[in-house]
Amino acid sequence: MSGLVDTGVFASRWVDLPEGAEELDPATLAPGFRAAAVACGLKGGGETDVGLLACDGESVRSALLLTRNAAAAAPVRVCRHDCDAGAIRAAVVNSGNANASTGEQGYADALAMRDAAAAAIGAEPRTVAVAETGVIGVPLRIDDVVAGVGEAATALSADGADAFTRSIMTTDRAPKACTVSAGGVTVSAQAKGAGMIEPDLATMLCFVQTDAEVPDPDAALRAAVDRSFERITVDGQMSTNDTVLLQATGAAGAPLPAGLLDAVLLGLALQVVADGEGATRIGRIAVEQAASVEEAERVARAVANSPLVKTALYGRDPNWGRIAQAAGMALAGEELAELGAAEIDAEGLGSDEAEAEVAVRLGRGDATAHVYFSDLTHDYIRINAEYTT
Amino acid sequence: MSGLVDTGVFASRWVDLPEGAEELDPATLAPGFRAAAVACGLKGGGETDVGLLACDGESVRSALLLTRNAAAAAPVRVCRHDCDAGAIRAAVVNSGNANASTGEQGYADALAMRDAAAAAIGAEPRTVAVAETGVIGVPLRIDDVVAGVGEAATALSADGADAFTRSIMTTDRAPKACTVSAGGVTVSAQAKGAGMIEPDLATMLCFVQTDAEVPDPDAALRAAVDRSFERITVDGQMSTNDTVLLQATGAAGAPLPAGLLDAVLLGLALQVVADGEGATRIGRIAVEQAASVEEAERVARAVANSPLVKTALYGRDPNWGRIAQAAGMALAGEELAELGAAEIDAEGLGSDEAEAEVAVRLGRGDATAHVYFSDLTHDYIRINAEYTT
Repeated sequence: MSGLVDTGVFASRWVDLPEGAEELDPATLAPGFRAAAVACGLKGGGETDVGLLACDGESVRSALLLTRNAAAAAPVRVCRHDCDAGAIRAAVVNSGNANASTGEQGYADALAMRDAAAAAIGAEPRTVAVAETGVIGVPLRIDDVVAGVGEAATALSADGADAFTRSIMTTDRAPKACTVSAGGVTVSAQAKGAGMIEPDLATMLCFVQTDAEVPDPDAALRAAVDRSFERITVDGQMSTNDTVLLQATGAAGAPLPAGLLDAVLLGLALQVVADGEGATRIGRIAVEQAASVEEAERVARAVANSPLVKTALYGRDPNWGRIAQAAGMALAGEELAELGAAEIDAEGLGSDEAEAEVAVRLGRGDATAHVYFSDLTHDYIRINAEYTT
Repeated sequence: MSGLVDTGVFASRWVDLPEGAEELDPATLAPGFRAAAVACGLKGGGETDVGLLACDGESVRSALLLTRNAAAAAPVRVCRHDCDAGAIRAAVVNSGNANASTGEQGYADALAMRDAAAAAIGAEPRTVAVAETGVIGVPLRIDDVVAGVGEAATALSADGADAFTRSIMTTDRAPKACTVSAGGVTVSAQAKGAGMIEPDLATMLCFVQTDAEVPDPDAALRAAVDRSFERITVDGQMSTNDTVLLQATGAAGAPLPAGLLDAVLLGLALQVVADGEGATRIGRIAVEQAASVEEAERVARAVANSPLVKTALYGRDPNWGRIAQAAGMALAGEELAELGAAEIDAEGLGSDEAEAEVAVRLGRGDATAHVYFSDLTHDYIRINAEYTT
């Protein structure tokens, strides 16, 4: 196992916490939020698998980002069609069953799970989001889940973040959560994700709570996600269940300090990469001198998703030729000045560092982009080939 | 090692030779063509690494397809800018050095190699194509190559196809070649390719010779390549050096029988997949009921390149959820009726067959497409991670 996952959300060289920020116990939620978790038997072994997260008051602004996968799971469709994305008061989550490719019954089950949570905490159904992660194509044992939701509602606690975080894990090797206070506000956040797992699909889920004033939660979340979860890849596979929720009460009467949400989401995103299936190292590819940001991102993603670059990261091989090939593929059909060792910094691949930096300069303009990626290892093959349904 | 590579170009369930076609010794070239190979020390171990292929007469029509990679190697750029693609009389090839990312010197070396071949056989330089495959970013030992080209020209033989085929191999586990006679014409063809290898990059090279009359070689080659080399993937990585050359003398006074070129190129393409790095099985994903051919191809490529589907093929896991996820990713942002077990045939993944068939029906229209792919195995990781530069 990589030690990367256990080093803490803010240990990465690539994450900058704003000055004066203080890390709190990640079990502690931002003021005004409570959480709980119960075991409903979806995962087996007595592990918790249903989590509930709720804002005490009704005055909350929120933003919700969902996967664009056309085969999106039932809970994603419920969030898209039957929730007030800007006024989400609570979230109910299960792990162990993604409720994807489950047809009309799956949709009804996701609605029932959401409605049970709303009833249990006395909220409008449309102000409750639902998220699920785990095996796909298997009917949800909705009666067990509904019973669990009722039980969770009686156990909500301001220190329930750790229980909640563990209840949304699937093959994650470690919980991913943090609580930070800065500038008179608190942000707590919990995430899960490790590739496509369980063993069918996985999911990246992330929940963020704050008492800060966030006048435009959509814009704030979109910007921070663009710089974090949109910049990572484990296996290049977009999930059916990805969900990110930001909730802000404004009770602290102060805004989010600049960079705080970025640091929290990037720190959690890097933990997802570090916990990527079979991962032993993280890479960061920086593309410079591109003709446009779109072009820089296209090249960065091609390099980050190349199995040849990912195996070179694993094998500590400073193989710049594989970066040139992937960049050239991303720019297929275009004219490109030849890329050689002078334009490509690949030494990071061969280094001993857990976080490797590589770069390519395209000589086509001033735009830049970067993407974080895991290595491709024997354990990835073992996890995905030898664990059969 | 998979036995797939050794079963012959026409052994696949997916290849249909036209009725009455007869397989000849693959060492035999189509009438009017000769080939030879020599060892110049590029590969070491005394293996042949420079091949020469020439048409005896000057009356030849040809078509040349080249990689679209923006970081294309020097020989590809020479073919693109300094050759008469429609009148290629000869091809000179080396293995062991891709002459990619080698700058202006690399371009000059590729031209010199081409010019040496033209002089040695008494042809116009612009009627000689050049192809190279192997390690990238390393200067070509052009003096050794030029000497070898002269030697090869004195050894040209009508039975030289096998020697030529072996001289263009890199990490290929077996030579890939065939000679077929049908309808009064003969087609001979030689290919190499096994992923991205040596260990930086690889290349798919294919040379096809015939005495048939081919009035529009570009159209004929484009159509056959669209149904063969454009339908395969090993690791989703477009090479810097891919080259396919068709030469036709017309001396037989008869056209190509329908389906013959298709069968030859598909047979060779499937051998490249079967010889994919670490491959143990081949899959064929058929996408049906798509809204357009473009959409069907996009979905087929997403499924074929998914590391989750490729590891399921390796692990013999009939995991339809991974196919649903990949299809949904390819259609991101669109509305898609939910894909379940009823729309996806994944049993082939779990079968004992060396050639597995899977299918997905999108319910959006009448268009179809299919793609052939190798599995993703421990040996892929070993080959690409543990062999360092």
